Amino acid sequence: MVKTSVFRERIEALRSIGKKAQIDAFLVVSDKNTRYLAGFSALAIERFAGILIPVDDKDPIVIVPKLEESKAKMRSAFNEVRTYSDSENPAIIIGKAVKELELESATFGVEGFLPFRFYRMLVGCSSEIKIRDASAMFSELRIVKSEEELGKIEKAADIVAEGIRAGIDFIKPGVSELDISCQIERVIRDAGGESIPFCIVLSGPNSALPHGETSRRKVRQTDVVLMDVGAVYDGYYGDLTRTVFVGSAAPKKRRIYDVVLESNEKAIASVKPGIRAEKVDAVARDVIGKAGYGQNFTHRTGHGLGLDVHEEPYICEGNAITLRPGMVFTIEPGIYLDGEFGVRIEDNIAVSRNGRKMLSHIAKDLMIVR
Amino acid sequence: MVKTSVFRERIEALRSIGKKAQIDAFLVVSDKNTRYLAGFSALAIERFAGILIPVDDKDPIVIVPKLEESKAKMRSAFNEVRTYSDSENPAIIIGKAVKELELESATFGVEGFLPFRFYRMLVGCSSEIKIRDASAMFSELRIVKSEEELGKIEKAADIVAEGIRAGIDFIKPGVSELDISCQIERVIRDAGGESIPFCIVLSGPNSALPHGETSRRKVRQTDVVLMDVGAVYDGYYGDLTRTVFVGSAAPKKRRIYDVVLESNEKAIASVKPGIRAEKVDAVARDVIGKAGYGQNFTHRTGHGLGLDVHEEPYICEGNAITLRPGMVFTIEPGIYLDGEFGVRIEDNIAVSRNGRKMLSHIAKDLMIVR
Repeated sequence: MVKTSVFRERIEALRSIGKKAQIDAFLVVSDKNTRYLAGFSALAIERFAGILIPVDDKDPIVIVPKLEESKAKMRSAFNEVRTYSDSENPAIIIGKAVKELELESATFGVEGFLPFRFYRMLVGCSSEIKIRDASAMFSELRIVKSEEELGKIEKAADIVAEGIRAGIDFIKPGVSELDISCQIERVIRDAGGESIPFCIVLSGPNSALPHGETSRRKVRQTDVVLMDVGAVYDGYYGDLTRTVFVGSAAPKKRRIYDVVLESNEKAIASVKPGIRAEKVDAVARDVIGKAGYGQNFTHRTGHGLGLDVHEEPYICEGNAITLRPGMVFTIEPGIYLDGEFGVRIEDNIAVSRNGRKMLSHIAKDLMIVR
Repeated sequence: MVKTSVFRERIEALRSIGKKAQIDAFLVVSDKNTRYLAGFSALAIERFAGILIPVDDKDPIVIVPKLEESKAKMRSAFNEVRTYSDSENPAIIIGKAVKELELESATFGVEGFLPFRFYRMLVGCSSEIKIRDASAMFSELRIVKSEEELGKIEKAADIVAEGIRAGIDFIKPGVSELDISCQIERVIRDAGGESIPFCIVLSGPNSALPHGETSRRKVRQTDVVLMDVGAVYDGYYGDLTRTVFVGSAAPKKRRIYDVVLESNEKAIASVKPGIRAEKVDAVARDVIGKAGYGQNFTHRTGHGLGLDVHEEPYICEGNAITLRPGMVFTIEPGIYLDGEFGVRIEDNIAVSRNGRKMLSHIAKDLMIVR
């Protein structure tokens, strides 16, 4: 269990980031940031749930729908929990809290995903409130993981690896993508995965769709099968992709697999403190470009992992962020031949003091399932 | 399969709603609304994906990340699909589309959940753009379901019912909430459920948390077990809750079950065209209030169901919307005794021409699992 002192430290870190940026207060509504900062996630869906955090030493105020009251009071690291019923307008409660915290002319830092509706509630409190996108500040807050967080991500990756290995064992001509996906999910759940937000299995030409959806298509001889699976352990994500061949692999498939694998390995080998994220992307892209498939690598090389499955540091062109120890991300180059097949190989990496630490432990040699 | 003509009709209906409200164009980014209006959902997560829909007869423009291109072109009902790579700023593509559609001084209708970041991209296109929350217009567009949609919701509810029945069969002292939840999910998937966004099993005192989370707690003799499960069939939700008793049910538990059941049944019996949503809520609330548990019914009576699990019409105090044939919602009164137990009974109902149609078919007499 995370201790209350952890949340105090995190709030202080956010306040310090806010002060530097001349932010007077933060409004936090995403379940991941409320979990990180206060130890609870409100399942509020379309209802408002959030925390007002002044950068001065006034206590943060948590606002949740009435039906979240017990959970919020039980789990929240903060004492000030206000509620509203389904017949009350949360804007009124927000307005009172803003007044109480003397934030009527404050500059608020908000999340990039703050819904327009909640944005309107906040600016409706006072005509002098100013709003700034504080996404970069929240990223900065969460981007370096503690040892405890690294352990959770590694455990999540271990669980995903176990699922993918079970999926590979299950593959044979005649089983459907959905069958394989179910098998992977079952094993992940048995292994302690608390949720499996995606478990994508794509076979044959479907594998050429980088974000395709698992279908009832049955696996055939000579198919490519691509598995991209994300699971959560104690709030933290592991996210791995493996691509295997059924029965045999024609020379073109082998060639492409080798290129993707080389891209994956060279990018991983380039990870160390001080290197820019875009440079790691360039290493991966360079291998695939030189092999003549640059146009078929249609996405970035990777994304950060943590409480969110996609967070900073993004390993992509134009991201000049310098990697530091404790940052965690995927490396997942791919080549997609429309109408034919696709190959992607994804691992999870932490930056260490002297280089990198693999958080995912699963073989990636070309594998032919018979 | 939904035919292309369906999407044309939906777009025309949205345009007509927009013209009445003096909206010049809509920006649609939610996966549900893009699915409803254009036949595809972009799995874009933090990337921008959306559709610009002018209310005049210019063609809508779809904007998706490069890696969604194949899927969007394959499935989108519209021809104009623009893409951007991970190194490009989608704001530029949005700006070009706004200019092309001559919307530089337009009033845009947006979704209440439009992320602040995308809101900024849109208002950044031109200083003369005005933004209005068009949530009510999108609700109006989707609130009355076609026969085809009703069939999908009923099928989804059937699948959920099958899962819950299997869950009930599985309950015995010693099995964990998680075990029961896995069993329900397995059966739902086998029955054709395409996703199971929540499968909440709460036992003993956990059942007193209206939105508690499934835990490893093991079921004991005399426990209450509450199962609240939502699953999707062809995009549409079924959402049911059943509460059962293990071994025996003490008089207080029986009494509370009876009150909740009466509340559920009377509220359902009150459903007919012309009645206001708040009136149905009042019927449910009245039964529980008169029994002395008004303070323990901490949430609204129900919510609309469709592509979203929570949508209009909300069955709650203050919602004066008049029910019309084709509207679909849950009726789910509950009583929660903090630290003791909770009971909730949830069904899915469609308004019919003369009254109501039950879409969920599962017993709700008090059940003791032995």
